[in-house]
Amino acid sequence: MKIAAVRVTPIAISDPPLLNASGVHEPYALRSIIEVETDNGLVGLGETYGDKPVLDRLIRVKDALVGLSPFDLNGLWQRVLATGQSSTQGIELDVAPGSQASSAHHKLFSGFEVALLDVQARSLGVPVHELLGGAVRRQVPFAAYLFFKYSSDIDPSYRRDPWGEVLDAEQLVGQARTMIERYGFESIKLKAGALDPDHEVDCLKALKRAFPNHPLRIDPNANWSLDTAIRMAQRLQGDLEYYEDPTPGLEGMAALHKATGLPLATNMVVTDMDEFRRNVALNGVQIVLSDHHYWGGLRATQVLATMCDTFGLGLSMHSNSHLGISLMAMSHLAAAVPNLTYACDTHYPWQDDEVIKGGKIAIENGCVSVTDAPGLGVELDRDALGALHEQYLRCGITNRDDVSQMRKFRTDWTRVKPRF
Amino acid sequence: MKIAAVRVTPIAISDPPLLNASGVHEPYALRSIIEVETDNGLVGLGETYGDKPVLDRLIRVKDALVGLSPFDLNGLWQRVLATGQSSTQGIELDVAPGSQASSAHHKLFSGFEVALLDVQARSLGVPVHELLGGAVRRQVPFAAYLFFKYSSDIDPSYRRDPWGEVLDAEQLVGQARTMIERYGFESIKLKAGALDPDHEVDCLKALKRAFPNHPLRIDPNANWSLDTAIRMAQRLQGDLEYYEDPTPGLEGMAALHKATGLPLATNMVVTDMDEFRRNVALNGVQIVLSDHHYWGGLRATQVLATMCDTFGLGLSMHSNSHLGISLMAMSHLAAAVPNLTYACDTHYPWQDDEVIKGGKIAIENGCVSVTDAPGLGVELDRDALGALHEQYLRCGITNRDDVSQMRKFRTDWTRVKPRF
Repeated sequence: MKIAAVRVTPIAISDPPLLNASGVHEPYALRSIIEVETDNGLVGLGETYGDKPVLDRLIRVKDALVGLSPFDLNGLWQRVLATGQSSTQGIELDVAPGSQASSAHHKLFSGFEVALLDVQARSLGVPVHELLGGAVRRQVPFAAYLFFKYSSDIDPSYRRDPWGEVLDAEQLVGQARTMIERYGFESIKLKAGALDPDHEVDCLKALKRAFPNHPLRIDPNANWSLDTAIRMAQRLQGDLEYYEDPTPGLEGMAALHKATGLPLATNMVVTDMDEFRRNVALNGVQIVLSDHHYWGGLRATQVLATMCDTFGLGLSMHSNSHLGISLMAMSHLAAAVPNLTYACDTHYPWQDDEVIKGGKIAIENGCVSVTDAPGLGVELDRDALGALHEQYLRCGITNRDDVSQMRKFRTDWTRVKPRF
Repeated sequence: MKIAAVRVTPIAISDPPLLNASGVHEPYALRSIIEVETDNGLVGLGETYGDKPVLDRLIRVKDALVGLSPFDLNGLWQRVLATGQSSTQGIELDVAPGSQASSAHHKLFSGFEVALLDVQARSLGVPVHELLGGAVRRQVPFAAYLFFKYSSDIDPSYRRDPWGEVLDAEQLVGQARTMIERYGFESIKLKAGALDPDHEVDCLKALKRAFPNHPLRIDPNANWSLDTAIRMAQRLQGDLEYYEDPTPGLEGMAALHKATGLPLATNMVVTDMDEFRRNVALNGVQIVLSDHHYWGGLRATQVLATMCDTFGLGLSMHSNSHLGISLMAMSHLAAAVPNLTYACDTHYPWQDDEVIKGGKIAIENGCVSVTDAPGLGVELDRDALGALHEQYLRCGITNRDDVSQMRKFRTDWTRVKPRF
């Protein structure tokens, strides 16, 4: 079995005006859909970043994969390295983590790796979780991912959303209630770093009162100074399952942990093996939020899991805006990783668009179920793919830029971190 | 595809009177041959320890695997845990490393894991190296493994061997020359810790003079005190590729490295993830000798490889006495691990018996070749298996005991470490 063709299709998916440390989500988020077709007629699917620096390099790599065995992940890695030597710079995505050349390669590798694993599993007639060593859970728990947000009325470019404006505690508790009623989530994560820190902590405390038995997380995306992060920690003692990336830098996180004793989580300062090694020395964070899109795929994330187990670190999962192929890749991975015991993050409830047959994947009792269907268990809806690609061409966005988008509503807005 | 039957057959293979830190090899070494048969008629092969504590537990686990998918390695792990709870003690093998309960489980897991991976690969029609991510090398380099030894005449229980007595430098250089002429080895490893340390170092220096371009290693199996190890290090400066387990304990190795700066290798003080973590903190050793038989199989050793890469450690490979199934498992693994750049250890030239069709596997230019034959690429010779199982029943050895064997020739011999 050899790879006969690889297709990379950029798509744009509608996204609500969600607030974060950088600014506000644009009306569309970008993804790349990867199809790997083999000479025996199988097709494996992958989904990853759609921003131009990544997309350009995905396209540069893809034809070099023709003739490769879908099992040859070392060969994939060598081809990613070979076609990417000249430009490992400029592949940073707004908000997304990772600043090193190795991470850029891992980002390219990941989308293809998932598609290759999907083909491997399909050729065997087994689900991806079985290929990864077998499911230790069939229901993969996800967390409610709460955002402060503007009403979609703020700009006609946004698709109308039913969530309305969410800027105060009452609105936020309402958002959480809807999320929980609709999807059954247990853990609740608040994306913070957008509004005044004391106000955000007030809102988190309102969540705590409204949902006293739900584990809570707050993620200011490194937008709080160390002093602010320590002060907020004093207010948050006892409220949190973990404290995610409040302040910049591994050294800053180490100082924060030393000062507060709170369990710190990250998808920003431990994003590759080199940073993992540094974290072992510094004890900056105690919980790593994995993300196969930049750790180098599903197998590499399994390695990360063993390393977390070895060094006594907790393991959770990060997400960017994504559709069902990524959701199922995350779910198959989480199903097969024994020590992935925290509910995973997902933006999925915020996306209405979908690229797979059957539309949106169900989240019930807070969980995505993995089945015994071959591969990732999802098929591409080519009509939907075509429509979302048209949307990509039409929308004109080629690089995520939450800062510029925010300037449309707040002309004085600047890129600064930490802001508070 | 499900597992329909599992067979575990203990065998005894003839072994020459090789000297080591504990004493001398007995006339037979023990192995267990594992066959995993699936409901679609495939058979996967594994080979591991044959000593009674391991054998008893392999037999206890094997029937619990019926009905399991050969891909379900997490399921295998759970079954190993479930059937082994009551006795994680007493599974130590003489000379072999590992003292923790987790290692005992990993030892049981490994033999089955290799057989399951062999079946997985056979069901796909691909070689194991492809299943592991693709070969980055087709020729896997091994090292000449030199031993001081008695002549087989010393005891009629030994099968007559052509290597004769090797106790001095001239005899050892002769042994090396034969090994190199016959197999083309580059690296040369001397098993030490058996004779007077100064004499052993004299012998190593004779090897250096005779083979100035061959990388050299010396392995006293922790039989030298720290003082002796430091003194020998002063004599060995510049002669060694690495200095393997001269002195006991991770702390001892750390002190030795600090005192000498020599690169230290181990298969004794970093044998599981917990010891790996401790080594990161102590910088005891700089090169880990992997061994899939106790690290938990081929996939787990791949994880170890990434961890070595992450923490800047070198990676080589350890061996015990073994036959061709283990040799091919080692070779497929080494073929697929990019950073396994040292020649691997193997006792294979010391074994005349074989359990696979076609007899002994060729070592040419110091390398074992992996091919594209499905699975491990070897088939069981059932007649040979039967004969070696008869030999097991006949020889009466059920636990390796190099100490007692040595007492037959030196009545004052005792178990003591470090001896020098």
